[in-house]
Amino acid sequence: MRTDVTVGIDVGGTNTVFGLVDEQGKCLAESSIATNAQDPPESLVDRLAAGIQEMHAPLAEACRIVGIGIGAPNANYYHGTVEYPPNLGWKGVTPLVALFKKHFDVPVAITNDANAAALGEVRFGAAKGMRDVIVITLGTGLGSGVIANGELVYGVNGFAGEIGHTTVDPNGRECGCGRRGCLETYASATGMCRTVFELLCDSREESELRDVTFRQLKGRMVTEAARRGDKIALAAFEYTGRILGMKLADSIAHTTPEAIILFGGLANAGDLIFEPTKRWMEQHVLGIFKGAVKLLPSGMPEGNTAVLGSAALIWTELLKTR
Amino acid sequence: MRTDVTVGIDVGGTNTVFGLVDEQGKCLAESSIATNAQDPPESLVDRLAAGIQEMHAPLAEACRIVGIGIGAPNANYYHGTVEYPPNLGWKGVTPLVALFKKHFDVPVAITNDANAAALGEVRFGAAKGMRDVIVITLGTGLGSGVIANGELVYGVNGFAGEIGHTTVDPNGRECGCGRRGCLETYASATGMCRTVFELLCDSREESELRDVTFRQLKGRMVTEAARRGDKIALAAFEYTGRILGMKLADSIAHTTPEAIILFGGLANAGDLIFEPTKRWMEQHVLGIFKGAVKLLPSGMPEGNTAVLGSAALIWTELLKTR
Repeated sequence: MRTDVTVGIDVGGTNTVFGLVDEQGKCLAESSIATNAQDPPESLVDRLAAGIQEMHAPLAEACRIVGIGIGAPNANYYHGTVEYPPNLGWKGVTPLVALFKKHFDVPVAITNDANAAALGEVRFGAAKGMRDVIVITLGTGLGSGVIANGELVYGVNGFAGEIGHTTVDPNGRECGCGRRGCLETYASATGMCRTVFELLCDSREESELRDVTFRQLKGRMVTEAARRGDKIALAAFEYTGRILGMKLADSIAHTTPEAIILFGGLANAGDLIFEPTKRWMEQHVLGIFKGAVKLLPSGMPEGNTAVLGSAALIWTELLKTR
Repeated sequence: MRTDVTVGIDVGGTNTVFGLVDEQGKCLAESSIATNAQDPPESLVDRLAAGIQEMHAPLAEACRIVGIGIGAPNANYYHGTVEYPPNLGWKGVTPLVALFKKHFDVPVAITNDANAAALGEVRFGAAKGMRDVIVITLGTGLGSGVIANGELVYGVNGFAGEIGHTTVDPNGRECGCGRRGCLETYASATGMCRTVFELLCDSREESELRDVTFRQLKGRMVTEAARRGDKIALAAFEYTGRILGMKLADSIAHTTPEAIILFGGLANAGDLIFEPTKRWMEQHVLGIFKGAVKLLPSGMPEGNTAVLGSAALIWTELLKTR
């Protein structure tokens, strides 16, 4: 008997990763192609279909594809669409699920990458067996997926879980979304870099980061400087953790998850970000929630994370109806 | 055949209301007794049991009691307990469900009043048929109940849905919970009264509220003054709506409900509070959520609201298993 596998696909601004994943979260094969974000989406789907067939061919006797899960920016789970994505050249609303259905006669589901990551953590990662979880992806921006009562919360229009766009300060930093003071302008790799320059202005402390331009500075450089004991870099982590911890206390007041999982580039800084975030989160949280919510790193294998998340999305759909 | 009814009970700091409610939300009888909050909880349960028997006796041929739902402060749904209630004299953890089970051989469930109100709106009120809803009770404090994917969110420890204790300003007003700047110190009847006195200090505007002491001022007096065109009272509503609208935008980013329902004393001020709250909510919400979330008044009949909410809690439990 052939093993059932799903295809997990993660559409990024630069590359699109895809792979075959079994029910236990084992990634049997993985590959990637350029997204070519300025081309029409049909071109990406055609190339992905070919890539998937090619990947599956040598495994066709061992496994059969039973579903496809897609993580993509501005994805609408309810409609199977990608709507006005800021980092892709696609105009308006793209019916991405329908485009895949032309190539594959299996269930296809789509959501954004943070929701896919949340489903991945619950099915294959650090939140296995948990019914209430929030996953926060700390990359260029801050994405989030909210799981309550064992189910992902999509909300009335399919876009719920945008904790990165809760407001820290209505007169604060300009955000890519057009508003000011959103959490992701503080708690993300780029947000932390903005904080570094604020601290460089405010303080007279010596720092290796005084020799870096705004455009050059990356989150990883702040992490490395902090590990070398640079006081400005350390203060930037403290500030980032303070804002993030304070806002996570608000999230806890909403759905009180068993765990909040920090995921992505900035989360890889480890204790540098976890320690202040946890400390400020506990300080700000309501008494009845103190000590109730774990702050955890991702439990998914690093290389396959995005593919596993998207695969978890479709496994979740398939196992609902079994 | 006798009609199935449930008992809905709302335990307040002063009075405890109870009534018989059928599956359609018709309240067949309602009564109340003094809570006597300084007496041990066994005394309240004994008196309630007697009151319920007495209420049911003349209806015993027409209906049978199939369950009991209780709304109480600091209630833990998972454990069936009331834990360290600030407004009752009960010490520590009271196993209220177990106490009722000594008198009645039917399912008994408990939650806090705001969660009960949320279940009431979904089953009998303004949110009938909705799967994603947030109910905000604006009274002395700000309570909330969050429903996502058709289910109330209790979270990991049974206390989820405390939007009143999200933070507006970490250096803001002292809150009864021991922290500072919680939403309920601004958006509640007492919060609005605090705002009135801030405005009286800040502004030179004439106002009838300059003749009222801090202790005398009640939310209803601010509403009446605003209806007479008092500029300070109107500004207090505007400020309250601004803070509430801004924080509701954060709530929308979490679970994106189909509707947010404002409920309780301050919500009865109607447009005075709904108009600024809606305007600031729309102004602060992320683009993809604009116009997606309704702001509605309660749809439950005024007199029976609390009893219907508690009855909805146990009806929801009973209908799950049918």
